[in-house]
Amino acid sequence: MSQTLKRVGQRTVQFSNPPCIISTATIVGPKEGEGPLAHTFDKVMEDTYYGQKSWEKAESKILEESVQMALQKVNLSLQDIDYLLAGDLINQIICCNFAARTLGIPFFGLYGACSTMYEGLALGAMLIDGGFASKVVAATCSHHNTSERQYRYPTELGSQRPMTAQWTITGAGAFVLASEGTGPRITHATVGKVVDAGVKDPFDMGAAMAPAALDTLVNHFKDTGRGPQDYDLIVTGDLASVGRSVLIQLAQQQGYDLSQNYTDCGVLIFDPSQDTHAGGSGCACIAVVTGGYILNQMKAGKLRRILGIATGALLSPLSVQQGESIPGIAHAVAIEL
Amino acid sequence: MSQTLKRVGQRTVQFSNPPCIISTATIVGPKEGEGPLAHTFDKVMEDTYYGQKSWEKAESKILEESVQMALQKVNLSLQDIDYLLAGDLINQIICCNFAARTLGIPFFGLYGACSTMYEGLALGAMLIDGGFASKVVAATCSHHNTSERQYRYPTELGSQRPMTAQWTITGAGAFVLASEGTGPRITHATVGKVVDAGVKDPFDMGAAMAPAALDTLVNHFKDTGRGPQDYDLIVTGDLASVGRSVLIQLAQQQGYDLSQNYTDCGVLIFDPSQDTHAGGSGCACIAVVTGGYILNQMKAGKLRRILGIATGALLSPLSVQQGESIPGIAHAVAIEL
Repeated sequence: MSQTLKRVGQRTVQFSNPPCIISTATIVGPKEGEGPLAHTFDKVMEDTYYGQKSWEKAESKILEESVQMALQKVNLSLQDIDYLLAGDLINQIICCNFAARTLGIPFFGLYGACSTMYEGLALGAMLIDGGFASKVVAATCSHHNTSERQYRYPTELGSQRPMTAQWTITGAGAFVLASEGTGPRITHATVGKVVDAGVKDPFDMGAAMAPAALDTLVNHFKDTGRGPQDYDLIVTGDLASVGRSVLIQLAQQQGYDLSQNYTDCGVLIFDPSQDTHAGGSGCACIAVVTGGYILNQMKAGKLRRILGIATGALLSPLSVQQGESIPGIAHAVAIEL
Repeated sequence: MSQTLKRVGQRTVQFSNPPCIISTATIVGPKEGEGPLAHTFDKVMEDTYYGQKSWEKAESKILEESVQMALQKVNLSLQDIDYLLAGDLINQIICCNFAARTLGIPFFGLYGACSTMYEGLALGAMLIDGGFASKVVAATCSHHNTSERQYRYPTELGSQRPMTAQWTITGAGAFVLASEGTGPRITHATVGKVVDAGVKDPFDMGAAMAPAALDTLVNHFKDTGRGPQDYDLIVTGDLASVGRSVLIQLAQQQGYDLSQNYTDCGVLIFDPSQDTHAGGSGCACIAVVTGGYILNQMKAGKLRRILGIATGALLSPLSVQQGESIPGIAHAVAIEL
C-alpha cells in the first residue's frame, strides 16, 4: 500500500527500471521492400500471399515469423517469454489470434487500430517494470489487401482513392522487452484518450487522428516538463503527409515547434514515386519503421532519445455507415539509450 | 533490477498488494432481466434499442452507463480513474471505442472475445499492483442482436439454432479496481494461451472453449498448489451446459473433481424455460454474473474465495469461411475476501 506511484503529471508513467528493447524483427511486403527503408527490414516478402491460401493467413504467418525471428536474434525460445501482447486491424484480430495459437505464449489480445504497437509496448513495459514478467513480446501486423477488402472496397474493383488516402502497409513487427539486457530502454509512456475532431471521411484519416496525437503529445510534454527540443526525434505513425502537416499546425497553436525534429512513419516508408498518395498506414507501419530504421539509428548512436506516438483511427465500416465520425487515439512511448 | 517477480509457478501472477474491487455496476437486456438472476442486476433495459438508433449504439450506451454507475456508487468521478480497459465482440470494438470517447478516460482497447472481462481484470490488477495506477475501470459489453447479425445470420431471418448453440446476452458490466478500499480483492491471475481442440462448428462453442479453460485451470492449480477444494466456487463464463459437462469430464481425467463447486455463468443467467438452448454467452455474461450475483454472495459472506475463468472463442465469420477451426482462450482470476 505504501508503494509510490510510478507516475508523473496527469497521464504519464515513468518507469522505475526502464524495460529494455533487447530485440526486434521486421517483415514487410514487396511494395514496402521497394521503398526508401528497404535496407532496414529483416525480410521482404516475395509476394503478398507468402505461400498461404489467403491474405489473412499470410498476415498471420508474418506476425508469427516476426516473433520467432526476434527471439532467434537473442537466442531465446518461445518458453522464455511470459506474455505476448498483440493485435491487428482484421475483425476479431484473427491474424494475431491464430499466430498466438502457434506460438503458444500466454496472450493478451489488444485492439488499438494503428496505435496497437505502442499500446503493446506501453503495457508490456508496465508488466515488466511492475514485476509480473521478465520478458514479453509486443507485436502487430497489417496487410494491404486484407485491410482494403475489409474496410474499403473489394480489391478486384480497383477503386480510385483520393489524394488524402493512406496506403495500409503489409508487414509485421515484433519487439522483445526484458527487465535486463542491452539496448534502448522504454522510459515513459503516455496513454491516449479517445479524441474526436468530427472528421467523417474515412479517406482522410491523418486529419482525423492528428488531434489525438496532439492531445497525447501536449500531455506528455506537460507531465514530463519536456518539450520538442528534449528529443532527438519525435515520430508519429501514421498521420502521413496530410496529418503530419495538421499536427505541426495544431502544435504550433499550443506553443510547440515541431518543424525541426518531427517526422511520421507513413511519410518515411514510401517514396512519393510509389504513388501511395498521403503515405503509409496500418498497424505494422510504425512497428516496422520503429523496429528497423529508428532503432538502427539509436544503436548507431545517431539518436539518443526519441518520442514515438502511435495513432489509431477508431472506425469500422459499420460505424461509418451508421453516421459516426472517426475518433482517434494516440499512445506515446519515450525510448532512450 | 533486483525486483522480485510477482509470479508463482509457470504462468500465475500473485499480487503483492492485491487490488480491491471497490465497486461494480451491471446493466442487462429485457430477456436477461426475466431470468433467475434478475434481482442481482443494477438495471434492466426496457427494450433492446435503449433509446438509440441502432443496436450497436445501444451496446455502446450501456457500457458507458455501467462505468458511470459503478463510479457513482463510490462517489468517484471520471477524472479519478487512471485507465479504462475494455473490449467487446463487435468489429474493431466500436462499442467500447465510442463509449471511451464519451468517458474520456485514458484507454486500453482489448480483444479477448468472451474472455475480455477477465483479461481486463488481470491487466487492471497488474497496472495497480505495479504502481502505474491507483484506480482503473475494467469493463465489457455484448448485445444479442449486434452479435447475431455480425457472427451468424441477419436477425430478420429467424434461423433455427441447434441445441448446442449459446445465446449471446445483452448487457454491460464495469468493475472499479483500486489499490486501497474495502471489498473483495484480486489475489492471483493466470493468463491463458490459445488452445485449439480442432472444433469447427460455430454453434458448439462450449466444446471449442472447454480445452482452453482446462489448460488455464490446471496450470492455475499447479502454479498455486491449490485444488478445487480450496475455492468456495469455481465459475467459468461461458461454456454453458454443453461446455460445462465437457470441462468436468476433462478435469476428471486430469485428477481434478469439479463436480462439487463448479458452475458456469451461461448456465446461471437463463432458466431452461427461456429457450436459449445451451445457455448464455457474450462478453457481458461473466461480467454481469460476477459483478452482480457472485460478488453479492461474497459481500454477504457466503463465498470467501472464488476462481473465475473467462473463456473466449477466437473465431470470426471470415476465419470460419476460410476453413479454420475455432481456438479458445481462458483467463483465470482468483478473488478473495
